Amino acid sequence: MTRGKLLYEGKAKRVYATDKSDEYIVEYKDDATAFNAQKRGEWAGKGETNNAISAHLYPLLEQAGIPTHFLGRLSEREQRVRAVTIVPVEVIVRNVAAGSFSKRLGVEEGTPLPRPVVEYCYKSDALGDPLINTDTAVSLGWASEEDLRRIRELALQVRDFLVPYFEARGVRLIDFKLEFGKLGTGEIVLADEISPDTCRFWDAATGEKMDKDRFRRDLGGEAEAYAEMRRRVTGGA
Amino acid sequence: MTRGKLLYEGKAKRVYATDKSDEYIVEYKDDATAFNAQKRGEWAGKGETNNAISAHLYPLLEQAGIPTHFLGRLSEREQRVRAVTIVPVEVIVRNVAAGSFSKRLGVEEGTPLPRPVVEYCYKSDALGDPLINTDTAVSLGWASEEDLRRIRELALQVRDFLVPYFEARGVRLIDFKLEFGKLGTGEIVLADEISPDTCRFWDAATGEKMDKDRFRRDLGGEAEAYAEMRRRVTGGA
Ligand SMILES: Nc1ncnc2c1ncn2[C@@H]1O[C@H](COP(=O)(O)OP(=O)(O)OP(=O)(O)O)[C@@H](O)[C@H]1O
Ligand SMILES: Nc1ncnc2c1ncn2[C@@H]1O[C@H](COP(=O)(O)OP(=O)(O)OP(=O)(O)O)[C@@H](O)[C@H]1O
Ligand SMILES: [Mg+2]
Ligand SMILES: [Mg+2]
Repeated sequence: MTRGKLLYEGKAKRVYATDKSDEYIVEYKDDATAFNAQKRGEWAGKGETNNAISAHLYPLLEQAGIPTHFLGRLSEREQRVRAVTIVPVEVIVRNVAAGSFSKRLGVEEGTPLPRPVVEYCYKSDALGDPLINTDTAVSLGWASEEDLRRIRELALQVRDFLVPYFEARGVRLIDFKLEFGKLGTGEIVLADEISPDTCRFWDAATGEKMDKDRFRRDLGGEAEAYAEMRRRVTGGA
Repeated sequence: MTRGKLLYEGKAKRVYATDKSDEYIVEYKDDATAFNAQKRGEWAGKGETNNAISAHLYPLLEQAGIPTHFLGRLSEREQRVRAVTIVPVEVIVRNVAAGSFSKRLGVEEGTPLPRPVVEYCYKSDALGDPLINTDTAVSLGWASEEDLRRIRELALQVRDFLVPYFEARGVRLIDFKLEFGKLGTGEIVLADEISPDTCRFWDAATGEKMDKDRFRRDLGGEAEAYAEMRRRVTGGA
């Protein structure tokens, strides 16, 4: 499996072509950005950690019946994935109020939500990933009603798998962001990553933040928190 | 029917108790506000015009099978309505991209939407009426899933009645905001008002704005535009 042309360089990852037209290589970088890339940083080990966590979780999600893009880990920083057309709708699943949700709605951070909230944002850095709803996504041609129904179903299945998984490891899963993609066949699969960059993790015992909020909010200790999350998720792999 | 205690003074209307516990009197004021009351103005005739337009449309909506709070016009500025508990979710129905939708999503104002978009905002001046979705409304206890299903159904019925009604009068209905309320029985009814304050109306021939955007955007001629809308809607009543 050799890395071909760089297809896309994002804020946290690079996507490369391979010798197979339906497979990509994703490389995890050490860069960190927040607030739509207005804040930038990096730390050694971030890419490896996120790669390890994602590469650990996606096969478990597959086993739980959730189709994903993941094919295999290639190296410390690289994984092989199925090439998909990303649905330009980010999916946020919230178990507990935090972040933009708390701010926007005046709900104190840490307030448990009596039922999960699924939010959709239009994936557009230029517009700052604005909140949308399914009518808007369908009307503007970003996803079909059927695709969105499937995406919601899968997002809630991911939640139902991850919440007890993290709980068993002393971590509260506050919220997380998913991206879905479409295979050539039209099938919707979970793509992108699941890592401390894309989830809010709070230590179940101390309430300490173990995710990108350490970087966003200048709390310090991000490298240690990510490394601890890697240990808890993978058991040291 | 005598006016009792002032129960609520809003930006555009006053709500009074009556001698019947299940009826209110709504008085339409001449005040105009925009951008969450950061911009303020008023003009003679605004209250009368909005009262006349709403009082004309609500009985027609009732006839079309949409339950409303409207009971009757009492005077130039007043109408009698059923007392409801307002669902704290504003419902925006969009036929054509405009206003905050265009800005937020980078869609040029005037772009027709291939299918209507229903948006929900949490009715909170303090938070600036933030966009929400149905999961959020249910999770935070603002409305039940069943109520929201009914509200959506009624909002689309209102649209299906109003679009051809205005079209026949040389007006394009670009978008509009509705509020719904709950009767003691639990029944959801259309409440509040439908007027140039709460709709975007564009002249079908010239594209000229005939609604609160004249005030919001300092275009001038708001009194004339409202009066013209009253003539077109009511035929002069
Ligand atoms: N299987 C896949 N096939 C194609 N593209 C993918 C796949 N999985 C993830 N991607 C996309 O690859 C990119 C990963 O890069 P990165 O996460 O750094 O982007 P980003 O800076 O977060 O920007 P974006 O806002 O585009 O996500 C994303 O655009 C993501 O949507
Ligand atoms: N039938 C009804 N029973 C009870 N309240 C109603 C009824 N119809 C409308 N209302 C409420 O009466 C108020 C009307 O006042 P107005 O429209 O001026 O308020 P506003 O300044 O726009 O503020 P708001 O953001 O509360 O609407 C609104 O709060 C509206 O929700
Ligand atoms: Mg990304
Ligand atoms: Mg109002």
